[in-house]
Amino acid sequence: MSILTRPILEINLDNLLDNYLTLKKISGKAIAAAVVKDDAYGLGAKKIAKLLYNKAKCRHFFVAHGVEGKEVREAAPDAFIYVLQGIGEDSLDEFNEAQLIPVISSKEQLAFWKEHRIAGIKPIVNVETGLNRLGFREYELSELEESDRKEFSYVMSHLACGDAKEHFMNQHQLDMFNFLRDTYFPKLPASLSASDGTFLGEDYLFDMVRLGAAMYGINTAPYRENQMKNVVTVKAPVLQIADLPKGEFVGYSATYRATANRKIAIVSIGYGDGVPRSLSNVGKIFFNLCDKLHEARILGLISMDNIICDVTDIQNLQVGDMAHIVSDFYTLDDMGRDAGTISYEIISRLGKNQRFIRKYKGGEEE
Amino acid sequence: MSILTRPILEINLDNLLDNYLTLKKISGKAIAAAVVKDDAYGLGAKKIAKLLYNKAKCRHFFVAHGVEGKEVREAAPDAFIYVLQGIGEDSLDEFNEAQLIPVISSKEQLAFWKEHRIAGIKPIVNVETGLNRLGFREYELSELEESDRKEFSYVMSHLACGDAKEHFMNQHQLDMFNFLRDTYFPKLPASLSASDGTFLGEDYLFDMVRLGAAMYGINTAPYRENQMKNVVTVKAPVLQIADLPKGEFVGYSATYRATANRKIAIVSIGYGDGVPRSLSNVGKIFFNLCDKLHEARILGLISMDNIICDVTDIQNLQVGDMAHIVSDFYTLDDMGRDAGTISYEIISRLGKNQRFIRKYKGGEEE
Repeated sequence: MSILTRPILEINLDNLLDNYLTLKKISGKAIAAAVVKDDAYGLGAKKIAKLLYNKAKCRHFFVAHGVEGKEVREAAPDAFIYVLQGIGEDSLDEFNEAQLIPVISSKEQLAFWKEHRIAGIKPIVNVETGLNRLGFREYELSELEESDRKEFSYVMSHLACGDAKEHFMNQHQLDMFNFLRDTYFPKLPASLSASDGTFLGEDYLFDMVRLGAAMYGINTAPYRENQMKNVVTVKAPVLQIADLPKGEFVGYSATYRATANRKIAIVSIGYGDGVPRSLSNVGKIFFNLCDKLHEARILGLISMDNIICDVTDIQNLQVGDMAHIVSDFYTLDDMGRDAGTISYEIISRLGKNQRFIRKYKGGEEE
Repeated sequence: MSILTRPILEINLDNLLDNYLTLKKISGKAIAAAVVKDDAYGLGAKKIAKLLYNKAKCRHFFVAHGVEGKEVREAAPDAFIYVLQGIGEDSLDEFNEAQLIPVISSKEQLAFWKEHRIAGIKPIVNVETGLNRLGFREYELSELEESDRKEFSYVMSHLACGDAKEHFMNQHQLDMFNFLRDTYFPKLPASLSASDGTFLGEDYLFDMVRLGAAMYGINTAPYRENQMKNVVTVKAPVLQIADLPKGEFVGYSATYRATANRKIAIVSIGYGDGVPRSLSNVGKIFFNLCDKLHEARILGLISMDNIICDVTDIQNLQVGDMAHIVSDFYTLDDMGRDAGTISYEIISRLGKNQRFIRKYKGGEEE
């Protein structure tokens, strides 16, 4: 028996690299840019950028903020690093220092850029095609000067429903993108698709795709089995096993009551570690004992530091055994569905506190 | 007009200190320990421990994990630092190095402690009184040797429903705690209450209270107006303002459709920053223009990096204006309610990524 207290986040770099290479293949002649924003969805942007730079010759990276780009620059000395949220007074230093490339989405950003141009850098222009998020609307594009249109190295847009193959929005956005490109940026290289779009066929690939979620193992084409390998594993040790007598309550606000005598395990992970509290009373965790998989239902409200689960029918479970929270057999996508959210939200929050033991598997030397 | 891209997390240390002192007063003669686990609910454990140590002579701190305790030790050289999840092989070094005090909740932990005792350290014993989380059950207490019972400096337990004044569990747990203490640890100093329990009256105070959530401004006694001052403010800049024509969709999966022409703002914060995705289509954010408060409804699904909101009726809004995401007038508790969760989950996740600009207000010099 081991006495352990800390949760563990394992990141399989070999699988991540495989996913990137698979996606790159699907992307054909398009440049396969890697999206490593928000610290590579929480998995470590510097580490992952370095891996892709060294092992897959990736030379195009997308981040959300200048401060993120600066960190990626340390890992990818001569790569193109694009910043999706654009450039501002609060990120100008990072852009200059790390030679970052802003994605310009509005006339205000363009005006700012023209005042603070960085020598040798040509921004991407982002055009709105139906997501109604960041991007020039057509009424703004029509007001651009001829010289403004020559500022840019790429024209991009972003799909709203790329994860739903037959959604009418896909063709609509594709048509709109082609129209805007032909009308306002006829000779400019183009990028429309993130991970999900790469599965929609050749028309959606253009000159560059932006690979994020799928690279991290998320199924961005949920209308079929996931083609990606699992990257994220989360485990946490059992701190205590105890009897739960019939009639007793479990957890804050006493939301679960035992209708029979049960056995419970208290596991050392909670919502403070990024496990969604919405899994309370509905989620499940797993134990792998003697190569047999056991499912344990989550009982009561999840706490900041602990999950309580029903282990009545699990023989031989011991204090110190590891509960599998996210795994090959219960992925981020599975957890997202059970939690009433999406895997993207979960991955971006897991393991951000210092109590996690973070292990990188594969990827070889620094 | 300013062009800005980064969200801002402001932590009001003066208000936090005031809250601590208010709670300390309510706690009477009981020691007012500060709970700074999970990096002080994400607000910065070292900074906050130092503040309480220097300005309020706080000498008792609770963390969840050894690694957290080690950090608090740097801020509080001669304080008692208790570790709620206990001690294990993966935290032994931290306990020795930083002279941490484990909370022992099971016979397995006790056995481990007896093998790895640290000179001069007397653990807390945690007894189970109804939460059915960590803690010795009575059937385990009755099996303890007389010598085992002398290992400890405190006996503690934890309330399940302390935030509901009239909940039958409170009296039940109080009675159980008194019974277990009288029976097994008759002379030991005791601690039952966290923030919420301190509002339940003198019987719940014992020798030490453990002040966490309320200190950070959360209303742990929601049956009345919050007595605490707000500590957390989150703002994020408007990146773009655009027309949303009638019939257009907003955001991923096209979950919002405009039934009339609207004006929208794209704000630079998303679920990757800790804003709950469950606020999609139901939450609201605020703009304070010329000292007038404007409410803007969140439209469509929240993205990892952006929120889109309806600003049709807000005049004079400009790119670069700051949206108030959490504030004195829309607190963590308000957001928790709208998001279908609790403020505790939100606070522990906000601003954990590097893109946040973190500002500490008050508290004076280092």
